[in-house]
Amino acid sequence: MLSNELQHKIDFKTKPLGALGHLEQLAHKIGMAQKTTSPRLSHPHMVVFAADHGIAKAGVSAYPQEVTYQMVMNFLGGGAAINVFCRQNGIDIKIVDAGVNFDFPSDLNLIDKKVRKSSRNILEEPAMTSEEYQQALKNGKSEVEEIAITGCNIIGFGEMGIGNTSASSLMMSKLFDLPVINCIGRGTGLNDDQLQNKINILSAAIDKHTHTKTADEIAQTFGGLEIAQMIGAMEEAFRQNMLIMVDGFIATVAVATAWKKNPDILNNCIFCHVSDENAHLQLLDLLGQKALLNFNLRLGEGTGCALAYPLIQGAVNFLNEMSSFEDAHVSNKK
Amino acid sequence: MLSNELQHKIDFKTKPLGALGHLEQLAHKIGMAQKTTSPRLSHPHMVVFAADHGIAKAGVSAYPQEVTYQMVMNFLGGGAAINVFCRQNGIDIKIVDAGVNFDFPSDLNLIDKKVRKSSRNILEEPAMTSEEYQQALKNGKSEVEEIAITGCNIIGFGEMGIGNTSASSLMMSKLFDLPVINCIGRGTGLNDDQLQNKINILSAAIDKHTHTKTADEIAQTFGGLEIAQMIGAMEEAFRQNMLIMVDGFIATVAVATAWKKNPDILNNCIFCHVSDENAHLQLLDLLGQKALLNFNLRLGEGTGCALAYPLIQGAVNFLNEMSSFEDAHVSNKK
Repeated sequence: MLSNELQHKIDFKTKPLGALGHLEQLAHKIGMAQKTTSPRLSHPHMVVFAADHGIAKAGVSAYPQEVTYQMVMNFLGGGAAINVFCRQNGIDIKIVDAGVNFDFPSDLNLIDKKVRKSSRNILEEPAMTSEEYQQALKNGKSEVEEIAITGCNIIGFGEMGIGNTSASSLMMSKLFDLPVINCIGRGTGLNDDQLQNKINILSAAIDKHTHTKTADEIAQTFGGLEIAQMIGAMEEAFRQNMLIMVDGFIATVAVATAWKKNPDILNNCIFCHVSDENAHLQLLDLLGQKALLNFNLRLGEGTGCALAYPLIQGAVNFLNEMSSFEDAHVSNKK
Repeated sequence: MLSNELQHKIDFKTKPLGALGHLEQLAHKIGMAQKTTSPRLSHPHMVVFAADHGIAKAGVSAYPQEVTYQMVMNFLGGGAAINVFCRQNGIDIKIVDAGVNFDFPSDLNLIDKKVRKSSRNILEEPAMTSEEYQQALKNGKSEVEEIAITGCNIIGFGEMGIGNTSASSLMMSKLFDLPVINCIGRGTGLNDDQLQNKINILSAAIDKHTHTKTADEIAQTFGGLEIAQMIGAMEEAFRQNMLIMVDGFIATVAVATAWKKNPDILNNCIFCHVSDENAHLQLLDLLGQKALLNFNLRLGEGTGCALAYPLIQGAVNFLNEMSSFEDAHVSNKK
């Protein structure tokens, strides 16, 4: 039994039983996912999906829509937080245009998976047509297929898209049948009036689309192009048996969508941090998951994954490199 | 004003205000300690002090005393958890014999700062004489002086010593005038009977020495040789304006002792994790400090510091490497 073998290996390392706390559970999980007592992390990648949101025009964010393409340029220039943390921790980073409302020059190191310029305004129609949603899933899947060729077995996903906490709140509300007000936070920094405005707008969006039922219908109707590509990418990462590093609220909503379709995906997911966004902790609880870091991050981009990566590496390393009581001739408990 | 300059630099990075959460406060603290808006970490070191405790004979630990020297051999062989995490994160490690009850061969890569073989049994007399305690402080100080020559400006301290959670509980009780039962935990894994036994023994130790008042008297009477050397080392690290990475319960008790003598030391301290040991969270609260990680670690050795180091590096890196809104031509909040 692999589970017992892993636990035995962990328990007989030169440390009191359980003394490495959450790191031990993480090591066990990684061993189970990779089906070995000697797991390895290879070619870690971070994929940041960017897209715009029709609903941004309604004023649900503290930032103007142009920030999406400006931040994509910042990613490509290496100056965003996710670049800094990936560089520090040896993680390859890919930036994907999933549907930014901007014509980028063609000579950039940007992966063009644009389905359309911005999702549709959900106050008027579903965020994507069925065809657009299916295309977005496929584009996410193909991105992971390309990365798999490098030998990557651990991947994180980030997002950039002004308005995407609103889309995620709506998806959470529908996926778990919760009042939308329980799923709303201040995003990138709304004041009280702006928050009330967001609540009104999202409530109107919920009232507009009452017939969504399945996880895919919910994502198509309320999601965004970067969220849909992230769902497709996560599903493919699971199919390839990669470890999936899950970032904040938006990434967790993407996982929750995939989980509704196949609960086994959680076996490969490492929840990297619990964010300052109100609904995130609640969402983790609904999925029965604990996060590695509690740092009040609310940036997205995959920053929580990139920061947590050395802890994941630490879990693998202690399992492979620490001596056992027997190897090191250390006496065990009396 | 450096504080304002640092906050301005943090606030105008390409991210929503405050979106990097605790990492922003950490970056600010490091900048203040180093008196610059462009701090650097150089030549990180971990010093593990090992010593035995007279009180171990009374059966306060789940492990026999010989584990102290066996674990020192394990550190020297590179097979302990602290070796794994230091190797992973590029931290130089030094192992110091502060008072292990064992004659080590002379050809080991072990730093000999042994004051005596084991502290005295506090059920009978103070753990150290005044001369022994002063010598231990000096030995800790000299170790940091030697490391400072490398250009090290960030240092963590670990400990190994069967019985040292008991010594630390007694010190906490006296430093903060708290009932000893509030300061006791299960150490490396006591069962209920063993815990009750530990409570009885430590209560007897408290009753035996009622005249200790100053922080130094408390450390001399109830501490241990590795704890005393850690106090001396921390004081010297502060004098050299190094950043001090603080590990778990025992290291935090050492800091609390130094803090009683000079509260400013906290300006340089980074509390790396809150442990599973009952009293640690309470002790952090008494010092007004929050820890970076909450991983249920209870291993000591400095493992919490070594695991948290990449997060500290992340705080410095975002401050130095991220673009500002202006540099990256990204629009700020509406």
